[in-house]
Amino acid sequence: MGERGIVPRKVKGFRDIDPVTSRLRRRLIEAATEVYRRYGFEHWDTPVLEYADALGKYLPDTDTADEGVYSFRNPEMEPVLDGRGQEVRDDANNVVMTHHVLAMRYDLTAPLARRYAEELWARDDIRSQQPSSPKPPLFRRYQYGPVFRFEAKLDPGRYREFQQLDFDTVGSTDVAVDAEACCVLSDALEATGLGRGTYEVRVNDRKLHKGLFERVGIADETKARDVLRVIDKYDKIGPSGVAAELQGGRIDPGSGAEVPGLGLPSGAASLVIDYVESCLGVEGRENVLARLESRLADTPSGREGLDEMRRIHALLAGLGYGDDRVVFDPSVARGLAYYTGPVFEAVSKLEVREPSGAVRRFGAICGGGRYDGLVERLLGLRVPATGASIGVDRLAELIARTSAAEAEARGPVLVVVMDPSRMADYQRIAAELRAAGIATEVWYGPQPKMKAQMTYADRKRCPVVVIAGGDEFAKDTVSIKDLLRGKELAGEIADRAEWLRRQPSQVEVARAAMVETVRSILAGGNA
Amino acid sequence: MGERGIVPRKVKGFRDIDPVTSRLRRRLIEAATEVYRRYGFEHWDTPVLEYADALGKYLPDTDTADEGVYSFRNPEMEPVLDGRGQEVRDDANNVVMTHHVLAMRYDLTAPLARRYAEELWARDDIRSQQPSSPKPPLFRRYQYGPVFRFEAKLDPGRYREFQQLDFDTVGSTDVAVDAEACCVLSDALEATGLGRGTYEVRVNDRKLHKGLFERVGIADETKARDVLRVIDKYDKIGPSGVAAELQGGRIDPGSGAEVPGLGLPSGAASLVIDYVESCLGVEGRENVLARLESRLADTPSGREGLDEMRRIHALLAGLGYGDDRVVFDPSVARGLAYYTGPVFEAVSKLEVREPSGAVRRFGAICGGGRYDGLVERLLGLRVPATGASIGVDRLAELIARTSAAEAEARGPVLVVVMDPSRMADYQRIAAELRAAGIATEVWYGPQPKMKAQMTYADRKRCPVVVIAGGDEFAKDTVSIKDLLRGKELAGEIADRAEWLRRQPSQVEVARAAMVETVRSILAGGNA
Repeated sequence: MGERGIVPRKVKGFRDIDPVTSRLRRRLIEAATEVYRRYGFEHWDTPVLEYADALGKYLPDTDTADEGVYSFRNPEMEPVLDGRGQEVRDDANNVVMTHHVLAMRYDLTAPLARRYAEELWARDDIRSQQPSSPKPPLFRRYQYGPVFRFEAKLDPGRYREFQQLDFDTVGSTDVAVDAEACCVLSDALEATGLGRGTYEVRVNDRKLHKGLFERVGIADETKARDVLRVIDKYDKIGPSGVAAELQGGRIDPGSGAEVPGLGLPSGAASLVIDYVESCLGVEGRENVLARLESRLADTPSGREGLDEMRRIHALLAGLGYGDDRVVFDPSVARGLAYYTGPVFEAVSKLEVREPSGAVRRFGAICGGGRYDGLVERLLGLRVPATGASIGVDRLAELIARTSAAEAEARGPVLVVVMDPSRMADYQRIAAELRAAGIATEVWYGPQPKMKAQMTYADRKRCPVVVIAGGDEFAKDTVSIKDLLRGKELAGEIADRAEWLRRQPSQVEVARAAMVETVRSILAGGNA
Repeated sequence: MGERGIVPRKVKGFRDIDPVTSRLRRRLIEAATEVYRRYGFEHWDTPVLEYADALGKYLPDTDTADEGVYSFRNPEMEPVLDGRGQEVRDDANNVVMTHHVLAMRYDLTAPLARRYAEELWARDDIRSQQPSSPKPPLFRRYQYGPVFRFEAKLDPGRYREFQQLDFDTVGSTDVAVDAEACCVLSDALEATGLGRGTYEVRVNDRKLHKGLFERVGIADETKARDVLRVIDKYDKIGPSGVAAELQGGRIDPGSGAEVPGLGLPSGAASLVIDYVESCLGVEGRENVLARLESRLADTPSGREGLDEMRRIHALLAGLGYGDDRVVFDPSVARGLAYYTGPVFEAVSKLEVREPSGAVRRFGAICGGGRYDGLVERLLGLRVPATGASIGVDRLAELIARTSAAEAEARGPVLVVVMDPSRMADYQRIAAELRAAGIATEVWYGPQPKMKAQMTYADRKRCPVVVIAGGDEFAKDTVSIKDLLRGKELAGEIADRAEWLRRQPSQVEVARAAMVETVRSILAGGNA
């Protein structure tokens, strides 16, 4: 029992990452950032902790405490600031102090907006918004690291801390940037090892939804968001379920629960369903555009959205990104509240088997879009921006579950300690192997028993152990055991006596030949 | 002005990391982890958030709120657990719930202890501590990432979020591991680019201090810690200042403040000062050991500490790590409260110039030691452990301030946009360069004015810009501007008219020769 009954445990929703997963994460991040870098994005990092007000609240899940954000009061007292950044004073002219609320970042986009706005905050020439003012500068950066979300209801396989890997362009209104973002996502996913055809980048435009609401006559934003939430259930509850929930409501046949309706007139509900169904099974960006054109071209927002998607299509086509990589899908919504134009997500089309035995499509691994309003909140100046985020842990899970090659992750060579008084010799053996670039450790455990050391080697996936006792030291040799080959042979030789006699996976070599022998085993040769 | 007067700003003590520093950090982490990996440490990661009680409180600075740790109540209600991990129930047999306190990790050692203890917690065979019980297993891991400390008084250049890069061995009592740790630190620092002779790893043993206190007759731990704190000021206040603070106190000549004394008898104070001064200017581990031997060999703890240091010395010598890399220094204390045996730190001997103009030694960049009690707190079982941590940000600062080579950090090639209607062509130019492995971006800023684009290229350290207007498209050429060479030449050609006529840093080449021309410029050739 620990001190005063402390139980060693992780916080619920958090986890430790083992060496195989750590390595996979590392590899994915390296491959994807190399693609980001090649597109001219540069690595900027921001703190894990920010002022809560500077981040804002944009998470989809607003039912939870603090709207899904881990936040707390700064232990430090600081001045209260007014909107011009000046300290607020009380009637006695004393600076008013407070503990500001801090928040752990819930994504990497809100901190980017803070960083960008902070730099411009000092520039009166930009903030004053005269016709002669310079435009907000172009800024392109990538960033990766952990983000934190307090999701009250935690689905299996979901965590409250997870890694994101973002790239963003701030300062451009041109949807050429959005088209490029689709190329970046596609290139990055392929660089991490996803085969072409196993994933697709799906593009939509929030303005199409806006056009739909203009057409249907929904002006209220909350109502609009409710409608999108109902649309999102189309796959689950079908057209009649959607129709019912848009209008008078329905009884859920599974749970028997009453689902209230949104009270739309039946004509409006039909238009919504027609929009959802218009592109079902339609292949090719051109064809999707044609369907949407006939439905939304006469609404102001729909027109804008269609023009943006046409431009994106033309640029993608010009760069050779066809329907096998980037598709248009008017059902894509993306949860975050800050998107204003094109939105995109990348999904894996591969199927995975659940622990329950059920087989399902793996689903979304990246998301992004245009958020022209996020910086405005902080700067009072509209600054266009667009970007996307790879869910590193989701992608790692996908690769671990669908690619066998990744399993190979060897541990170091282990130098067995037979005689603790010879520690200096064992350390020199290890140093010699390391000098040849071979990861090697000495056994530092408590007892010099062979069995404990072999168990350790096994647990740590060691490919080779080096053994030297009085015998070997006297002859200036070492014994080298090939554990990989040993495992193979263990299946072939059933008789224990024969095994011990032959020791087929162990050789004794001159000390001078040690490095070469180990190297040859690691390269796949036999001992 | 932002929404409701929100000011875009970072939390005090936190900072953004620019691309040059991000790259340097990345390079250091890669070089050092490669060394760690070679010694058989494997990469494990743990969450940023932990239960506060599981981490414990070990920071040196205990004057601050929550003892220097950012902590807050978990938004989630969870059962209260007893010492056996069972849910506590009230009189009505209901599970007692609470909001446990969460803490942002303040180092990577306490989470390692939690992880190790958590795994063993379930193993009754180990926890029961029978003579036949297996010993706690050997575990070697490395980890890196941000840690968080709320230091109330923030010195310039210090931050509340910083990166650590740790390696640890749990499960071994043998100080051979501590000797190895000194080798790992030395190798890792040299791998990041520190020259031999510019740094030293300083080793001490907490047991020597314990021996000193046994000799002087100080049994109280708080008093002992106070004495160490006074010793630590030796460089600043000299022997007479130390003598005064150990005894009756003194008036600080600078501030005039009264510094209370610890009330030691004068004989005890003399012994302490004699210990501190015994090794001043003494070179060579052997000589330091001889001095300490004569003073501490007759105390039980001193004897133990000296034997440990002798063994460390012998193993280091056997591996060829001489006094040029690892020294013994009895003044090394290390602030963290959990160390129990050998402690070590690596310091740079290079001098840096402060903004104030003062020149100082750069100081400590790594620290570590043996902490045999940290896991015990959680498991009720003494588990030996030892490890060390590189302060990544400190090391990055050192390298940035003392090595000119690191400054070279080029941005991408910029494709200038002269005619926005040709966006597809510009994107294709960029794609072609990228396909050749050259980081390239297209200008997506608002106006196609050349000046804004060149300012952007300059700010982003772009080495080359590619220019194509109607002229070039008609001839199937591009113009390529070498900005690096351009900057050099700008010094040589003073006359603006001549500059414009000669355009010495710009060439027009056939579109088919674009990639080769850019590549040659980047490789250092001329355009």
